[in-house]
Amino acid sequence: MEGEPTLRLRIFDLNCWAIRYLSKRRQERIRLIGDKLRQEGFDLVLLQEVWSEQDYSDLKAKLASCYPFSHYFRSGVIGSGLCVFSRFPILDTLLYQYSLNGYPYMLQHGDWFCGKSVGLIIMKISGIIFNIYPPCFLQLHAEYCRDKDAYLPHRLVQAWELAQFIRHTSKAADVVLLGGDLNMHPEDVGIRLLRGWTGLRDAFAEATHFEGCKNGCTLVPDNCFTDKSEMLPFPLGIRIDYILYKAISSFTVKCEELKTTTGPAPGMAIPFSDHEAVMATLHIQRQGQPAGATLGTADLALADVVTEARTEVGVGLRAAQRQRYSWGRMAVLALLLLLLQAAAALGTLAGLGAEQPFPKLSFCLLAFLSLGVLILATGLHVFHTMEVKMLHGTEDQMWMALRALQERP
Amino acid sequence: MEGEPTLRLRIFDLNCWAIRYLSKRRQERIRLIGDKLRQEGFDLVLLQEVWSEQDYSDLKAKLASCYPFSHYFRSGVIGSGLCVFSRFPILDTLLYQYSLNGYPYMLQHGDWFCGKSVGLIIMKISGIIFNIYPPCFLQLHAEYCRDKDAYLPHRLVQAWELAQFIRHTSKAADVVLLGGDLNMHPEDVGIRLLRGWTGLRDAFAEATHFEGCKNGCTLVPDNCFTDKSEMLPFPLGIRIDYILYKAISSFTVKCEELKTTTGPAPGMAIPFSDHEAVMATLHIQRQGQPAGATLGTADLALADVVTEARTEVGVGLRAAQRQRYSWGRMAVLALLLLLLQAAAALGTLAGLGAEQPFPKLSFCLLAFLSLGVLILATGLHVFHTMEVKMLHGTEDQMWMALRALQERP
Repeated sequence: MEGEPTLRLRIFDLNCWAIRYLSKRRQERIRLIGDKLRQEGFDLVLLQEVWSEQDYSDLKAKLASCYPFSHYFRSGVIGSGLCVFSRFPILDTLLYQYSLNGYPYMLQHGDWFCGKSVGLIIMKISGIIFNIYPPCFLQLHAEYCRDKDAYLPHRLVQAWELAQFIRHTSKAADVVLLGGDLNMHPEDVGIRLLRGWTGLRDAFAEATHFEGCKNGCTLVPDNCFTDKSEMLPFPLGIRIDYILYKAISSFTVKCEELKTTTGPAPGMAIPFSDHEAVMATLHIQRQGQPAGATLGTADLALADVVTEARTEVGVGLRAAQRQRYSWGRMAVLALLLLLLQAAAALGTLAGLGAEQPFPKLSFCLLAFLSLGVLILATGLHVFHTMEVKMLHGTEDQMWMALRALQERP
Repeated sequence: MEGEPTLRLRIFDLNCWAIRYLSKRRQERIRLIGDKLRQEGFDLVLLQEVWSEQDYSDLKAKLASCYPFSHYFRSGVIGSGLCVFSRFPILDTLLYQYSLNGYPYMLQHGDWFCGKSVGLIIMKISGIIFNIYPPCFLQLHAEYCRDKDAYLPHRLVQAWELAQFIRHTSKAADVVLLGGDLNMHPEDVGIRLLRGWTGLRDAFAEATHFEGCKNGCTLVPDNCFTDKSEMLPFPLGIRIDYILYKAISSFTVKCEELKTTTGPAPGMAIPFSDHEAVMATLHIQRQGQPAGATLGTADLALADVVTEARTEVGVGLRAAQRQRYSWGRMAVLALLLLLLQAAAALGTLAGLGAEQPFPKLSFCLLAFLSLGVLILATGLHVFHTMEVKMLHGTEDQMWMALRALQERP
């Protein structure tokens, strides 16, 4: 290490899986997480899926002495579930909500209600400005049919918006940190897009020393809370929780050590969550040119990734256009049926028809049914119209990015 | 002017009021706007309320030779209505959607469907990096009862989010420009918050030379398209379309000239829109220290504005909490009624009751009614839950900002 002093930063990241009434042994696990954080004294703690504000308040009270600064990001119906605890003061925060977030009618997945978003926390530690991004992503559903991931276009829109948000907001930062559950495998196009477009580096790949689950997996079949059937194609588990970083100005960041938990801690009966926690020790030093700047050769690879992502977004766009059309048609048909019924009813009232052609009850039921279909179909038509707009907008932005990449000298 | 050359930038800004089927003489006005833009050859054109993509495409085709670069921001059900035409290349874009945007059930106002948002356009002109923000804001409703503006908390959340978005994304910019219809009077708390928190300066107040409607008004009763009854309390009109600017790094910006249109152009039968257009000529020069930096004395005034805004957001928060509670109660009552009916129907089917107590038709209608109330009340409960979260989040952010202001040396 040349000259300048080094800042050593210890980070803890965990998807807490703390959904009220649904997550198993939630309160017990939150207590265990609090104990662990108090014992270990990290510098920065990034927690996801803390859906209940009560859990956040409990943690905040418990950790007040060792992590005096904290923030909870509020959004959506249930919340963003994102919270941050820190030993250092938080200077500013911002929340960016993705424009697409699954489908409201996929109630069993519930993504739409979670207000998926990315937070931004600005901190100054030893004179170094940190932009820290705790993201919250569309869940991975049905791991076993990854080939037919209906959410892929939405996931790519989120990855793109996250990357754009980081690029546009991090220009005054010295160090950028992104830590959280990205719900994507390391080789997925979304991760490659995010990493390529922002220049962020993967702590797992860069770590000098690693300790924990094989391949850095954070969702492993051994964990007593994971859904075993969904993990069948991945006997070793999958890695979907990341700590990514880069230095922007004249700093270098190195990952000295990366650890994951491996099930319950010694002496504990249960693990902290259905995910394993990720813990990184970063070394930050002021020196020379920033590392990780995009190079000419990297541009070509990046253009390939953006092209691939844009193709997938295009596929989603056409699917959304089809949906918009068919729900619109359904709404028009229901409206026509309603008008027909209204005409028939008015005709009967005016005494035009000698007798009423239908029994009252079924006539009434049919009217309610067509009204219901009309409301539902109109709602879905409106929803898919929004989806089309956002997919189209993202496709445009990606096209602009590709043009900029090609025009770069 | 010392040494360095000056960049002269001519900007055109107009709320086009181009809503398909609703706006009067829309196509004719879009044609007139296109003609004006082609004749005058501005450097940058910021248009709002271009709700139809067809109108954008028509303008784009017409202006291709003099404004080769353009962007249309897509969002929401109808779109954002924001588009930008430029003589200089657009390097990058981003769209930020406000977390609150009126009420979906206020169909007559229609705000909720418009995807209110702020765009970001990055351009490099003569080596100077411009961050240009075309915003789209909640409409002003019922000018005559401004004292009871039910939308004020939402408006303040939007002003705050806009200010935060500008602060966080403009750190690498040399010059920041914001041009558009902010739907607020110059002395409104939202405008003071936006200007105070970002340091943006008002082109109307700073202009060396002004020409146009008195007091820079852009919504005037003389305009044949404005709603005369809404303008009664403001016989001179109101100023709600702004061009704001600031220099961030070592540049200075001066507004040399500001103009507004005053009704129809000579030889034209109709004005461009129900708003007057705003045209500014800015001089940008590289020199010394940036102007408009927040000073110690300004901090006190800023703290007052943030406190005032936070109080209003708090009022909105409590109103939203009341709404959430009453719709939740309504949903529970409707559910109870449905369960009661289901029990009665099951009882009759099982032969427990000797005879059916109600006529079938009204029983059936009551069931549908309570189902309808249940769905509606649940939807509104969910909506107001989101509203509470976002108002609460904004209140928190403002509190953090106040603390930061007080702690500043």
